[in-house]
Amino acid sequence: MSDRKLTHHDPVAVLGLGPMGQALATALISAGIPTIVWNRTPERAEPLVTRGAVAAPTVAGAVRAAAVVVTCLRSPAAVDSVLAAHDDWAGRTVIDVTTGQPDEARKLAKWAEGNGVDLVKGAILTPTPTIGTPAAVTLWCGDRPTVDAVMPTLTAFGGTPAHLGPDPGATAAYEMALFDLFGTAVTGLLHAFALASAEGIDPRSFARYAAGIAPMLAELVGRFADDIAADQFPGDRSTVASVGASITHVIEATDAHGIDSGMLRAARSVIERTIAAGHGEDGLARLAQVLTPARSV
Amino acid sequence: MSDRKLTHHDPVAVLGLGPMGQALATALISAGIPTIVWNRTPERAEPLVTRGAVAAPTVAGAVRAAAVVVTCLRSPAAVDSVLAAHDDWAGRTVIDVTTGQPDEARKLAKWAEGNGVDLVKGAILTPTPTIGTPAAVTLWCGDRPTVDAVMPTLTAFGGTPAHLGPDPGATAAYEMALFDLFGTAVTGLLHAFALASAEGIDPRSFARYAAGIAPMLAELVGRFADDIAADQFPGDRSTVASVGASITHVIEATDAHGIDSGMLRAARSVIERTIAAGHGEDGLARLAQVLTPARSV
Repeated sequence: MSDRKLTHHDPVAVLGLGPMGQALATALISAGIPTIVWNRTPERAEPLVTRGAVAAPTVAGAVRAAAVVVTCLRSPAAVDSVLAAHDDWAGRTVIDVTTGQPDEARKLAKWAEGNGVDLVKGAILTPTPTIGTPAAVTLWCGDRPTVDAVMPTLTAFGGTPAHLGPDPGATAAYEMALFDLFGTAVTGLLHAFALASAEGIDPRSFARYAAGIAPMLAELVGRFADDIAADQFPGDRSTVASVGASITHVIEATDAHGIDSGMLRAARSVIERTIAAGHGEDGLARLAQVLTPARSV
Repeated sequence: MSDRKLTHHDPVAVLGLGPMGQALATALISAGIPTIVWNRTPERAEPLVTRGAVAAPTVAGAVRAAAVVVTCLRSPAAVDSVLAAHDDWAGRTVIDVTTGQPDEARKLAKWAEGNGVDLVKGAILTPTPTIGTPAAVTLWCGDRPTVDAVMPTLTAFGGTPAHLGPDPGATAAYEMALFDLFGTAVTGLLHAFALASAEGIDPRSFARYAAGIAPMLAELVGRFADDIAADQFPGDRSTVASVGASITHVIEATDAHGIDSGMLRAARSVIERTIAAGHGEDGLARLAQVLTPARSV
């Protein structure tokens, strides 16, 4: 691991110029960092070159010119093929923000170790318009000195970069669990809009009340975390059984309109397993404990 | 329909003293309204009598003594059996906050019309600790003069009572669609906690970032409502296909830990239907349009 601190004068390459890669490169340019860009289809580099980036014709060219290489690609397999396109990565710091599994990130860390590369793995939790602004939320993992050395780059991406520790799988694990919540909640939200429409409710009137669910959810996040940490699931506010009964009402309403009820039925099946295990009068956080597989000791 | 305005001196009966019924009765007592309470198991009335309520031994006794009767029961069937326990309801206003289907509320309205009763149907969207405070969110439907006449009662329940119009099914429709969102989101949240735990993430650390999803969701509610109202689904921020790809990553992560992936698979199946219908590059709000059954003209 290099212990050299990098500065705003060290060139950073961005490999992969999808919407997020473009946003990251734009943030680097705006921060005054010399920025090299590369994309499999080179047209994507053009708007960035207009703003001051240098387009590299090949991966090898980009890597040779840069101290830090940011990879922002479609998949870990795409990262592998970009890494294979050059044979001397020694001395570079690679910052990979490609979405993938924790184990894929750990495999990448092994490759880095074998190739003289310092690796920082990251997850970007907020959409492209937040990049380079205080609203960006980014998570990073890797050895502390490696993460500290690339702080000018991470800071340029916006917000306050959060370091989760050395496990290279950490940010991927957070990203998966957060997308689990996000993907389920937005699909559930759009299902609710469909049910409201079928009942003749105007979407904008429905939205006024639906938006009120968000702060309730934020409050429950903290309460559930406390219950799970304490392994105590008091049912004093609402119980697994009562939520199950309400979901059954919603399934009936959904079926009456011929709307797909797959998500609601899957949610109820988790609730039914929890009730069958004797936890119907517990608080809802018990579901997390029932879903979590037993750890081998 | 009576056109008499009721005051704080007109007695209100609360039938059904579960946690919500108790909270409603407590709010009436605190507002200085003479309060009569009844419950199938009379012990539940005791704490309210201590606070100043009068316990009625029978439904008939409660109805005879009250101008307004609030029903807060386990189900519309339980409401029916309470209504059947007395044979002269004429001249009363019934405020029913029991959760049920829109059609069950419309059936109740027919009963009210045939029995000389003014009906206000309601839905209480916030938990019991909010009742009687500004944080309460309550929805009401029924004829405007009927709703206006019982405003002292509705106001005592807290917040700013919202009147949705005359359709007696309106609040039940909102309640179903809002619980659709809430039930799916909290079950998804607890699934996310389970996935985080399986990855060794501390629940309180996870909660810090999970809470950040809530304001994103609130913002999306408004954006989705605009898209649905305009029947336009621009994919400039994120597409159905990209969300589908991310959900697939989460399913893989979930399967790797042996965690139930039923909700995620059900969400992906809605996304796959949307992609199959040619809408993969549209914005996510397209899901609501695909889920909503075609209206007969």
